[in-house]
Amino acid sequence: MGTIAEEIGPRLKPGATVTDVGSVKQAVIDAVVPHLPQGVHFIAGHPIAGTEHSGPRSGFATLFVNRWWLLTPTEGADGAAVARLRALCEGMGAKVDEMDAVHHDLVLAVTSHTPHLIAYTMVGVADDLSRVTDSEVINYSAAGFRDFTRIAASDPTMWRDVFLTNKDATLEILGRFTEELFALQRAIRLGDGEHLHAYFTRTRAIRRGIIEAGQDTAAPDFGRVAVASPKGG
Amino acid sequence: MGTIAEEIGPRLKPGATVTDVGSVKQAVIDAVVPHLPQGVHFIAGHPIAGTEHSGPRSGFATLFVNRWWLLTPTEGADGAAVARLRALCEGMGAKVDEMDAVHHDLVLAVTSHTPHLIAYTMVGVADDLSRVTDSEVINYSAAGFRDFTRIAASDPTMWRDVFLTNKDATLEILGRFTEELFALQRAIRLGDGEHLHAYFTRTRAIRRGIIEAGQDTAAPDFGRVAVASPKGG
Repeated sequence: MGTIAEEIGPRLKPGATVTDVGSVKQAVIDAVVPHLPQGVHFIAGHPIAGTEHSGPRSGFATLFVNRWWLLTPTEGADGAAVARLRALCEGMGAKVDEMDAVHHDLVLAVTSHTPHLIAYTMVGVADDLSRVTDSEVINYSAAGFRDFTRIAASDPTMWRDVFLTNKDATLEILGRFTEELFALQRAIRLGDGEHLHAYFTRTRAIRRGIIEAGQDTAAPDFGRVAVASPKGG
Repeated sequence: MGTIAEEIGPRLKPGATVTDVGSVKQAVIDAVVPHLPQGVHFIAGHPIAGTEHSGPRSGFATLFVNRWWLLTPTEGADGAAVARLRALCEGMGAKVDEMDAVHHDLVLAVTSHTPHLIAYTMVGVADDLSRVTDSEVINYSAAGFRDFTRIAASDPTMWRDVFLTNKDATLEILGRFTEELFALQRAIRLGDGEHLHAYFTRTRAIRRGIIEAGQDTAAPDFGRVAVASPKGG
């Protein structure tokens, strides 16, 4: 990002607005702003949209429709420039929200970066286990693992850079994650079914919230609401 | 499973074949076999198909089409009974494979059980983080987290029982998982981009294998749907 900013900086007209679509925001602001001339507005942005495929050819017309596009203007950013950028994003069908760059990086560490790291890890573990053949892993991957492999198929270079540039927030969330995982692991070891059941019941609520917030349209719709008793019977 | 077997045992005709669709196999065999009379064949089975929804109403006509259905006959199982059950599964469109129950439980610990536990944990962490609001978690969940929440929406009772009955294999895989996760965490802390890139590149191969093996059709396939099991899985 810094290299590109350095290259385009001298060629930008005064009053121009510059943005980006990177997954981490504070590091991009730090890298870009020093290279832009006075009078050029840099408003960092992050559209939360896409698939595991990268590059211009992986785009499609409805990519941003009904998706969130986060803007992280720095303090004192030009209001008119922010409004122009917002109109551009909304013109592509996106919903726009503004937040502080550091807060953005924490939110995304929770909702995207750490889940990706975990998925990568689980896929690596499966590949390492010599008693289970690759074809067994591949053939008998139920939904859980299959979703992990979809995540783990994402661009390695992009994800390397995400973790290197959002280090603090990722490490904090990873610390919390391993703490909670160890508590569940202990419950399994001790046969503490009540602990497991209570935990699994609690996590259902967030899922319901996501469906209601309409963020799940990219996945195949199951077409109906299943009537399931708590025991699944 | 044991309770049901105890109830139906005395009413079964000699020569009858009994099966189940539970996610763990050795524990089911241990629970069921003692209650079945001589001359009744118990062939445990596990269809790897379903959505995060449970119960008979969550079934649909093509649920098992082109999905694997694993059978874990015990040593000395009646060949004709296994063949009849296989024909039933294949008649519903499934692909059938046979394997040892203990091996089944290890394979599924890798491809399904541990990924589910991890997904539950990550969703719990997100919910706990007071600096990030629920609506931020919900609105800004990119694909990674969204997939996790879908997993974590599965039936709590079924998953409690999976972990309690497949304890050893799950704990083994969890141990390997945390080992590898710590190595990646260390790479992030040290800024070791090469380690991260190499790891992320390797995990892409398994994903390609899954696509080639045809386990990733658009059909909903998540968790498991109970069609005949008293405990929903």
